[in-house]
Amino acid sequence: MNSQSVEQYMAQLGQQARQASRLAAAAQSGVKNCALLEAAVAIEDQASEVAQENSRDLDAGRTAGLDAALLDRLELTADRITAMAEGLRQVAALPDPVGEITNMSFRPSGIQVGHMRVPLGVIGIIYESRPNVTADAAALCLKSGNASILRGGSEALHSNIAVANCIAQGLRAAGLPETLVQVVNTADRAAVGKLLKMPEYVDVIIPRGGKGLIERVMQESSIPVIKHLHGVCHVYIDEQADLEKANAIAYNAKTHRYGVCNAMETLLVAEPVASRVLPELAKRYSAAGVELRGCERTCAILGDITAATAADWDEEYLAPILAIRVVDGIEQAIQHIEQHGSQHTDAIVTEDYGKARKFLREVDSSSVMVNASTRFADGFEYGLGAEIGISTDKLHVRGPVGLEGLTSQKFIVLGDGHIRE
Amino acid sequence: MNSQSVEQYMAQLGQQARQASRLAAAAQSGVKNCALLEAAVAIEDQASEVAQENSRDLDAGRTAGLDAALLDRLELTADRITAMAEGLRQVAALPDPVGEITNMSFRPSGIQVGHMRVPLGVIGIIYESRPNVTADAAALCLKSGNASILRGGSEALHSNIAVANCIAQGLRAAGLPETLVQVVNTADRAAVGKLLKMPEYVDVIIPRGGKGLIERVMQESSIPVIKHLHGVCHVYIDEQADLEKANAIAYNAKTHRYGVCNAMETLLVAEPVASRVLPELAKRYSAAGVELRGCERTCAILGDITAATAADWDEEYLAPILAIRVVDGIEQAIQHIEQHGSQHTDAIVTEDYGKARKFLREVDSSSVMVNASTRFADGFEYGLGAEIGISTDKLHVRGPVGLEGLTSQKFIVLGDGHIRE
Repeated sequence: MNSQSVEQYMAQLGQQARQASRLAAAAQSGVKNCALLEAAVAIEDQASEVAQENSRDLDAGRTAGLDAALLDRLELTADRITAMAEGLRQVAALPDPVGEITNMSFRPSGIQVGHMRVPLGVIGIIYESRPNVTADAAALCLKSGNASILRGGSEALHSNIAVANCIAQGLRAAGLPETLVQVVNTADRAAVGKLLKMPEYVDVIIPRGGKGLIERVMQESSIPVIKHLHGVCHVYIDEQADLEKANAIAYNAKTHRYGVCNAMETLLVAEPVASRVLPELAKRYSAAGVELRGCERTCAILGDITAATAADWDEEYLAPILAIRVVDGIEQAIQHIEQHGSQHTDAIVTEDYGKARKFLREVDSSSVMVNASTRFADGFEYGLGAEIGISTDKLHVRGPVGLEGLTSQKFIVLGDGHIRE
Repeated sequence: MNSQSVEQYMAQLGQQARQASRLAAAAQSGVKNCALLEAAVAIEDQASEVAQENSRDLDAGRTAGLDAALLDRLELTADRITAMAEGLRQVAALPDPVGEITNMSFRPSGIQVGHMRVPLGVIGIIYESRPNVTADAAALCLKSGNASILRGGSEALHSNIAVANCIAQGLRAAGLPETLVQVVNTADRAAVGKLLKMPEYVDVIIPRGGKGLIERVMQESSIPVIKHLHGVCHVYIDEQADLEKANAIAYNAKTHRYGVCNAMETLLVAEPVASRVLPELAKRYSAAGVELRGCERTCAILGDITAATAADWDEEYLAPILAIRVVDGIEQAIQHIEQHGSQHTDAIVTEDYGKARKFLREVDSSSVMVNASTRFADGFEYGLGAEIGISTDKLHVRGPVGLEGLTSQKFIVLGDGHIRE
């Protein structure tokens, strides 16, 4: 395709999605669930075809010299194919958020007013070369009554199309139009550019991937974006902390997984307990191979660790590296988080009621925790059933985004011939 | 000020607002209410100073040749000054949305997860020459825990500053920083341009005014905008309508006020009842001086009215003009609304349960009504206490925007040393 035909192609997808979105919004729960369950069966039935298409992508990726991590994400093992099908069934089992009516109350005028939950319309998902996202994202958009346009990494094109075919089978079986879930069928990067500039057809863009992708989407999109860019998460160990809990949480938040956005990147410790907390923690970190970079007071306590530079406080390492700062107390901790945090997830460890309450209220992050590991910031852990992404923005939705985040609320008014006097 | 110093000045306001927003978010309800009540007293005490500053604006406006409607909106009569003070007291009396905790529930891991309602941060309000908006907007932003930057029409600058001084007195009396509510102190239009380009200081922009203003803001803003552009509202009279209710609602929705966004602009009537409904309604409209523009079938029934052109179906008249179309039934009505509506407010008149339910579900507007006048689409009528605007967007908030629309929800997690296994 040349760039003009890419534009035309994308506009056509957009138009079809907009049209399909009306049927998606009106589709009954049972019908949507049927589509999801049938798609799950199709994925299992056609596991070998999916794997075969995936091998084409893997071969091309190896030839192109993709690194091992990328190839790993690209691979659809038998387990991952089963997990995709299982994921579809899990989404089918979730309650349908669409049409939920809440807060209906009578007004003095006699009208009854409340909210009805409705889909957003058309959702554009832009992601990297992880073909299982195709199934996940399609399922969440469908269940929430939205049409979706899915644009995965070009390295995964054959895999994505194979998965999309299985979903299309599910849609057909349920009597829904295939245009309800559309995978962008070209590796041309111009497709992304056009997708971001079709507000007439697309209501919201959700990018999933590395910072480069997110930044490009933020800069180019003329459509609202649900996203998070950084995850510079903090744990603050207060002077009233239970030091055993503090140790467990600070260790877990850093070492449970390194490459994830809800991993702790900076540990803040109240000065009065620093010398009791840090040496033991440092031992555990060091055993796990975590490099420590400390402020002056931390270095004074721990001795032979690297001195942190100013840049360390803003760094999202996504690696076995941890910045540690000793602070005077909760005020300075909150200030530090305000200045250096990314409004993702921050936790306090304390047994003090007032400080717990203060931290919860004053830390302006999408998830704020007391005595729990930042690693809990996750759609499954929060009970959303699944997660299409995490938002660190302030409007619409903050934190892990599940089905509800893919909907909004309109007002409904019931009268009996009421007019305004 | 030259354009560079306007930029610097706006950046300074932004910085101050960002700083103040932290105090606003943490301020207790009682303190915020105290500021509002003291500001109300200040407005009453200084009514003559406010009126005097307003006369300066009025004089300048007359000299500049502003039209009568604009001068009327600009004028702060004694009644309007009293109403401003009363408005502040009403906002003080509303429940505080900030800090509300909902849906806390235990997860299998043992953590307890729920939502806390939090302010958005800094809100930029851009409005035309109606100085009473200064008090309204400041009050709603303050009560919802946000800092605000208010940019009114340049013709109202002296009036706005006088009102802002009263609000500043209220803030001081409550021990809050004056930078919590800042009125832009220059008539330079570059100030608006800069306000729209400071995402580091401003979290959301709310434009209030005519289409020209809204369009400019939509085009230029790099900050999320809460707005509505058009109000092409419909009433659909179904064949199962109670014709007395239909008559009352259709008359009220058009004639109660003409220049408002929730007035009906197009009447849709089901063919089977058209010849019974329209003649009587036409008589009432004609007595009220409303010009009718009908589709072919309407003209066949009503005889001597103007034939509607294609453009009429998309027109927001804001005037005593009404487009009328006879449709086959509910399907065509919903289709018409989809194609020509502005997702503002649409109503069905019917006694049929299934059609009421279908219309509520399938019409994708910010307010959808059964057997009630579109004129009810209003923050006060809905019980929001007050309204800072109306949103026809899909994300964050739809319909009249009250205090809750100026907040969002973060996740809070309570644990007892919980770590992720």
